[in-house]
Amino acid sequence: MTSASIDLNADLGEGFGRWRLTDDEELLSVVTSANVACGFHAGDAPTMRRVCAAAAERGVRVGAQVSYRDLAGFGRRTMDVPADELAAEVAYQIGALEVFARAAGSRVSYVKPHGALYNRAVWDEEQARAVVDGVLLAGGGLPVLSLPDSRLHRAAAAAGLPVVGEAFADRAYTAEGTLVPRTEQGAVVADPEAVVERALAVARDGAVVSREGTRMPVRARSLCLHGDTPGAVALARRVRARLKDAGVRVEAFV
Amino acid sequence: MTSASIDLNADLGEGFGRWRLTDDEELLSVVTSANVACGFHAGDAPTMRRVCAAAAERGVRVGAQVSYRDLAGFGRRTMDVPADELAAEVAYQIGALEVFARAAGSRVSYVKPHGALYNRAVWDEEQARAVVDGVLLAGGGLPVLSLPDSRLHRAAAAAGLPVVGEAFADRAYTAEGTLVPRTEQGAVVADPEAVVERALAVARDGAVVSREGTRMPVRARSLCLHGDTPGAVALARRVRARLKDAGVRVEAFV
Amino acid sequence: MTSASIDLNADLGEGFGRWRLTDDEELLSVVTSANVACGFHAGDAPTMRRVCAAAAERGVRVGAQVSYRDLAGFGRRTMDVPADELAAEVAYQIGALEVFARAAGSRVSYVKPHGALYNRAVWDEEQARAVVDGVLLAGGGLPVLSLPDSRLHRAAAAAGLPVVGEAFADRAYTAEGTLVPRTEQGAVVADPEAVVERALAVARDGAVVSREGTRMPVRARSLCLHGDTPGAVALARRVRARLKDAGVRVEAFV
Amino acid sequence: MTSASIDLNADLGEGFGRWRLTDDEELLSVVTSANVACGFHAGDAPTMRRVCAAAAERGVRVGAQVSYRDLAGFGRRTMDVPADELAAEVAYQIGALEVFARAAGSRVSYVKPHGALYNRAVWDEEQARAVVDGVLLAGGGLPVLSLPDSRLHRAAAAAGLPVVGEAFADRAYTAEGTLVPRTEQGAVVADPEAVVERALAVARDGAVVSREGTRMPVRARSLCLHGDTPGAVALARRVRARLKDAGVRVEAFV
Repeated sequence: MTSASIDLNADLGEGFGRWRLTDDEELLSVVTSANVACGFHAGDAPTMRRVCAAAAERGVRVGAQVSYRDLAGFGRRTMDVPADELAAEVAYQIGALEVFARAAGSRVSYVKPHGALYNRAVWDEEQARAVVDGVLLAGGGLPVLSLPDSRLHRAAAAAGLPVVGEAFADRAYTAEGTLVPRTEQGAVVADPEAVVERALAVARDGAVVSREGTRMPVRARSLCLHGDTPGAVALARRVRARLKDAGVRVEAFV
Repeated sequence: MTSASIDLNADLGEGFGRWRLTDDEELLSVVTSANVACGFHAGDAPTMRRVCAAAAERGVRVGAQVSYRDLAGFGRRTMDVPADELAAEVAYQIGALEVFARAAGSRVSYVKPHGALYNRAVWDEEQARAVVDGVLLAGGGLPVLSLPDSRLHRAAAAAGLPVVGEAFADRAYTAEGTLVPRTEQGAVVADPEAVVERALAVARDGAVVSREGTRMPVRARSLCLHGDTPGAVALARRVRARLKDAGVRVEAFV
Repeated sequence: MTSASIDLNADLGEGFGRWRLTDDEELLSVVTSANVACGFHAGDAPTMRRVCAAAAERGVRVGAQVSYRDLAGFGRRTMDVPADELAAEVAYQIGALEVFARAAGSRVSYVKPHGALYNRAVWDEEQARAVVDGVLLAGGGLPVLSLPDSRLHRAAAAAGLPVVGEAFADRAYTAEGTLVPRTEQGAVVADPEAVVERALAVARDGAVVSREGTRMPVRARSLCLHGDTPGAVALARRVRARLKDAGVRVEAFV
Repeated sequence: MTSASIDLNADLGEGFGRWRLTDDEELLSVVTSANVACGFHAGDAPTMRRVCAAAAERGVRVGAQVSYRDLAGFGRRTMDVPADELAAEVAYQIGALEVFARAAGSRVSYVKPHGALYNRAVWDEEQARAVVDGVLLAGGGLPVLSLPDSRLHRAAAAAGLPVVGEAFADRAYTAEGTLVPRTEQGAVVADPEAVVERALAVARDGAVVSREGTRMPVRARSLCLHGDTPGAVALARRVRARLKDAGVRVEAFV
């Protein structure tokens, strides 16, 4: 029997200037992959530098959390950005982050879209391809972290980029395997123990549970944890501890 | 007798979104070094990509024209940015541009501050060192283009970075060898033939002319041309043609 | 027989900082209503002040050209802004412009959304109502300038706000009376004489012509002229002159 | 014997989009004047609307906390903004806030510059006059809140605007009556009881205490409280309670 393993990813560096949001130091002691904001929805340059340095110190991998250009909306407002603009903006953000990753002796290891861009690239082929074009522009053949079977993943695979699927332990799934929109009842799983159970199901059994209670297979090499809500870091620690107790290795995806 | 040579540099890509300022295509047929705006005072991502591609096609070198974060003021308003913030912001801009340079088969070959940051780093030691720290952060030991003997050049040299001096053919110099501030009478040389004569003096004789008419030696391997005013491109062409007529090789500094 | 009258409106003040786009001075000698950019897609504070002063001097009315917050995209990228945010952002822009209008001895006389927000509010009920909520927040019961029968007009009318319909002389209409999207063949009427004829049809006969050549009635008290393309001002002048020749009074809507 | 009275002011609404900084609800139960951020260093439109509504509900007065345009630096970086630009930017911010104040049944009652602009306008005549020009542009003859005898106050008085002096209970003063710069030892008074004592000295005796321990008269009708640090709200409450115990009326300046 092979022992299971899982990557834990979370959004970091989501402050801007005077403002802080994520407890970056704490999160870096839990996750194996840090999605670092690159300045378009959050993440000023000094913060990016600081987070990259702290991540490198702890051996945590850094990914570019690319976003629409929307500080006021925190990247949560879908935007009809023309494909060529979007591709260039994605590449711009990756390049900016790369500087700080390299300065810390590390490098950008993957790309994960943020917020509204993440959601849009799951189903919208044009924006999915634009994000992929941006990753290609940036060079290095970076893996793309997204929902399994998303348009983004299909576009990335078609372009020869590695794809890494992720699952959410604190979100309800529809019977079709997509996330229940946040606007709907029961979209977010609040009970900590339920979150832990779902994390174990993903890591050990490769399964998520639908809103209706059905188990469904999921190809997820990474589990997304949230760090911007009260109690989030404690919950993340608990998930990690329970994964370890269950014999799951917590390690960055290759 | 060794034949003289000179580099010609100009600011490019200084539009933003819908707005255009510089005639990038025309300037690329004149200059040997393109100072490309990196998004902080001008230069959106699609423009940066386009200019880098066009420059690479014509064999024109690309430099990072780093600036204060100030779109509304076009980077012309001096800002008291703390050193660590400034260093990180400089590195961020270089990294973003590097992506587009590399995607075009080129690379960022030097760094030149823009506007108010350029002027401030001439005399302010703290900001000069912050700019140098940013260049160091970005890696690659990039040359720094500035006024000869500026604080920026001294800080760059002290940090082991190559320095490249530049002169201005359309600006009057004080007896101390600094530029006459734009707010003073006679700061800008408007007569095209006078500009050409001054360009020749820099390239052939290594000399600039003070406001009082005295010739002063200048260590300038590059000549800065302006491209954002009516008639600027025509004047730039004329300077280049006259340099050639005078046997001066126009070529990028090493 | 009553003589016809028409208002001419155009977008003004669409520069930002160092960048200029519209020939504001020239346009102010043609239009009777100036849609002034309020800082979200274009229009820095000094420009707003200058345009309001120039408009007041010539007796041209000023309207708030409200937009999504999107300088990089010039407000041309549709954004899913939550209704309460959009309402507040619309009110913010109106308030900012009101200061400069009043300082010039004038006032904001109407509201017209810009670009992607204009197009979205034609059909999207939620955003249409959000724009109306923003106008109500700003107070004063300002008229809303939009396409006749748009969702925006219906929402404005339902809220007790005056509505003013506008027509486009340089755009093709579908058989349903909506504008042919710019991405389609023949969307823009390029021939100046054709534009003039269409302007006359709107002002004299209350009619627009469909792509298929059918005349359709239109309730338009204003005609939108464009000022941001080469030759635009000359064409605007020609339209105005020909309207006058045809006995149409060119005057601001009440 | 006349009983003493004092106004308490604090900065509110200093979040932006997803980010929060000040505990606005709590502060509104302590202060009599709320300096509301207007979007240039902090304060998005929905926040401005919310704070104005909450302030009006509690009968707290609203002032425009105008700033340099600098979200990334939170308005704390001095900028050499040309006077005409600065004046227009100040007016823009006042106008934007006025909309939300009026919508809440209130109005903007005064103007107080923020951060680096506040400090600069204390000594820099050009920027002081530019701020005053902005207040004049906005109309209504609004009072200007600043340090007594500052350049800003002199410029405001010269222009016929009311001036209101404020004092700081948690900051050390130099023997000249200016604030000890934050970069110097002992600039900030940390001990809560010392802060309370200083607040009482200002309100009851019209006195501040210099770094050297000397009492100096101060003409302050308002006391500035800080709300953006841990424990700040509790300290503000304590100051207010102790002022009341001492028979000082806490009320907005006229």
